[in-house]
Amino acid sequence: MLDKNYNKIVMKFGGTSMADIDKISKVADHIEREFNSSKKVAVVVSAMSGETDRLINLVDAIGKIDNSERDAVISSGEQVSSALLALTLKARGIQARSVQGWQIPLKTDEVHGSARILDVQSKYLDDLISRKEIPIIAGFQGITDDNRISTLGRGGSDTTAVAIACSLKADLCDIYTDVDGVYTSDPRIVELAKKISKISFEEMLEMASQGAKVLQTRSVELAMSYGIAIRVRSTFAENNLEKNNKTINIGTIVTNEDSILEDKVVSGIAYSKNEAKITIQNLDDKPGVAAQIFGNLAKSAVNVDMIVQNISADGKHTDLTFTLQEAELKTAKSILDDLKSEVSYEKLIESKDIAKVSVIGVGMRSHAGVAAEMFSTLAEKGINIQAITTSEIKVSVIIDSQYIELAMRALHSAFGLDQK
Amino acid sequence: MLDKNYNKIVMKFGGTSMADIDKISKVADHIEREFNSSKKVAVVVSAMSGETDRLINLVDAIGKIDNSERDAVISSGEQVSSALLALTLKARGIQARSVQGWQIPLKTDEVHGSARILDVQSKYLDDLISRKEIPIIAGFQGITDDNRISTLGRGGSDTTAVAIACSLKADLCDIYTDVDGVYTSDPRIVELAKKISKISFEEMLEMASQGAKVLQTRSVELAMSYGIAIRVRSTFAENNLEKNNKTINIGTIVTNEDSILEDKVVSGIAYSKNEAKITIQNLDDKPGVAAQIFGNLAKSAVNVDMIVQNISADGKHTDLTFTLQEAELKTAKSILDDLKSEVSYEKLIESKDIAKVSVIGVGMRSHAGVAAEMFSTLAEKGINIQAITTSEIKVSVIIDSQYIELAMRALHSAFGLDQK
Repeated sequence: MLDKNYNKIVMKFGGTSMADIDKISKVADHIEREFNSSKKVAVVVSAMSGETDRLINLVDAIGKIDNSERDAVISSGEQVSSALLALTLKARGIQARSVQGWQIPLKTDEVHGSARILDVQSKYLDDLISRKEIPIIAGFQGITDDNRISTLGRGGSDTTAVAIACSLKADLCDIYTDVDGVYTSDPRIVELAKKISKISFEEMLEMASQGAKVLQTRSVELAMSYGIAIRVRSTFAENNLEKNNKTINIGTIVTNEDSILEDKVVSGIAYSKNEAKITIQNLDDKPGVAAQIFGNLAKSAVNVDMIVQNISADGKHTDLTFTLQEAELKTAKSILDDLKSEVSYEKLIESKDIAKVSVIGVGMRSHAGVAAEMFSTLAEKGINIQAITTSEIKVSVIIDSQYIELAMRALHSAFGLDQK
Repeated sequence: MLDKNYNKIVMKFGGTSMADIDKISKVADHIEREFNSSKKVAVVVSAMSGETDRLINLVDAIGKIDNSERDAVISSGEQVSSALLALTLKARGIQARSVQGWQIPLKTDEVHGSARILDVQSKYLDDLISRKEIPIIAGFQGITDDNRISTLGRGGSDTTAVAIACSLKADLCDIYTDVDGVYTSDPRIVELAKKISKISFEEMLEMASQGAKVLQTRSVELAMSYGIAIRVRSTFAENNLEKNNKTINIGTIVTNEDSILEDKVVSGIAYSKNEAKITIQNLDDKPGVAAQIFGNLAKSAVNVDMIVQNISADGKHTDLTFTLQEAELKTAKSILDDLKSEVSYEKLIESKDIAKVSVIGVGMRSHAGVAAEMFSTLAEKGINIQAITTSEIKVSVIIDSQYIELAMRALHSAFGLDQK
């Protein structure tokens, strides 16, 4: 597909792309190229890498935290980076203007620290674009009805970019980052992983939540709702740029399932090492016990992933095993300890030596046998499956973490994803 | 005077007072003390010391500068410090809220980098104060009619504090800084210098512009126009705090001449070492020559301070000497070089080995003989006077810079300012 089909684009640059004045100059090269090819351009930036952490450390040093003031501190990082980029463009004779969330305004709810976008006014930005002044928008932040600065949570600039693209009815949201696209699997583990040229929103969501951390999940959800195509591409890789005015195979386009012509059954192999499991041994096997346990975990926002229950020989006791994010292990254990007076069990056994591997692809909807192929591939390598979950476009299994690399390479090869 | 006479106060803290989390905690102590004594309080802060310079360096690294984007970058320093202070207060259970210039709004003209305040709305701040939520206002910045962030120039937070005090009709604007008041002379040079307990706006203006750099000149002008008393006091000096609920001799109060009871003829001895002089030798002594020279200098914003002209023996030539700020010497010389085709002279002689010493006091208005006393004191010490200027409340002389300390000590003693 030729790039010239995209007439109005939003370009988003992350923290590593904005890390210093030299890198900001490289970012300005990309903007200059798009602007000079007569595109209508709006830009969204993150803070210079390291800056948000520096600001968070200042806040943390105070101790007790108020999220609205925390937002006022940490949003300053994008204010600085957006103005530095606007300065760089103006020094080249290109009209540009830094734009903060409150100047647009980009309205959010009042959940400071992880606010959700409610509304993006397009007039201010449209006016700038129509007089060829490029808006350089501070990502990650907005303004509440109470006239206070809010932030969208880690990775929120991706969501800002997609929301701006929706508001401006852009043809494409280009996410410039430090990788050159989305891969069939993690190239650090699977050497034969290939860049994917197109992937559906649904697959991208599974890839992102399963550990391929390229785009913030909410940004993909938002793009899917509004049908805005996202392209993930590298700020720095030279081979990822236009050649002879053609943009063949640049980055990865995340778009509607319909517009993906290749009909692969499986698009990628994702994994997560931050898994843990808890086994509740010799639990009383009575009605309502599971509801009590998982109800209490849910109330404390512990996300339980997979559940396996084994009935014991006497029919009165059971071993209940579930998996969860490693970060939530401590909370979950304390909840179960508190429950011991109400629910009778012998003991809790925890383990962090597990990992999850997932096979993802929209093609599964019309092709049976993916799960069977997955299980036999793992069996051939002698890898025991501890738990399984499936969705329409995903099969995930929990395995012993020492086998994770072996499992990923075997599955990548078995589903025909290896580079030739 | 008892502090309780002040019911509504603005407290302003400079960069050294906000330098780190520990110092911000000390600032919070001051606010807590005033707030707990049932005062209505608004606070204005500068950026953490060093932060504005760090941001300016980022901007300068880009090269060509756009002042509106420069303002967006450097105003972020106060956004961070104001929110950190609000966080610190909230951690102590005191309601507080960071407030940026655009949130008030504090309107300025569009001269980015040295904007002037046009209007400060009081409603937003009044509402906060009346519900006992302390506004922690980011100093140094405002918003233009074009909805962009502007800054007021170096030391602008003093001006913000006074403007806020005017808008809120406060009884006092307390400027907390790293010195404990205004002194009769620079204590690093004149060991016997005393802290002044009260000084008039006019005298303070002369002291400030003559090198006693405690308050930004514009803040004093603004306070004078609106009749808002300013108090300069230390954030750190323990002996400068309330004792037995009485605030005896805290800091220096800058106020109307009328409310100053002591009737001293001379209030202080100020100095400036950043002086330079240029002598134009053998200049054609024709009508219009001086106008041409000083007209061209004024056009390039070179402030000429004192002018001395000596007629030569032949009556056709003259030596013209003038003094100016050392920083403007280079500009002035290049203007005079350019003029050589139009104005005939032999050569330019420059010197930086001069200094200015000034005797300041509103009492001069009613007391003759200050100038005579000054000249004879300097003559006794064998110090030659190179040039003289006077105003209603000031006599300044230019002397060889090697005598500056000697001159200051002698004058300080001669006008009865020495500490007992």
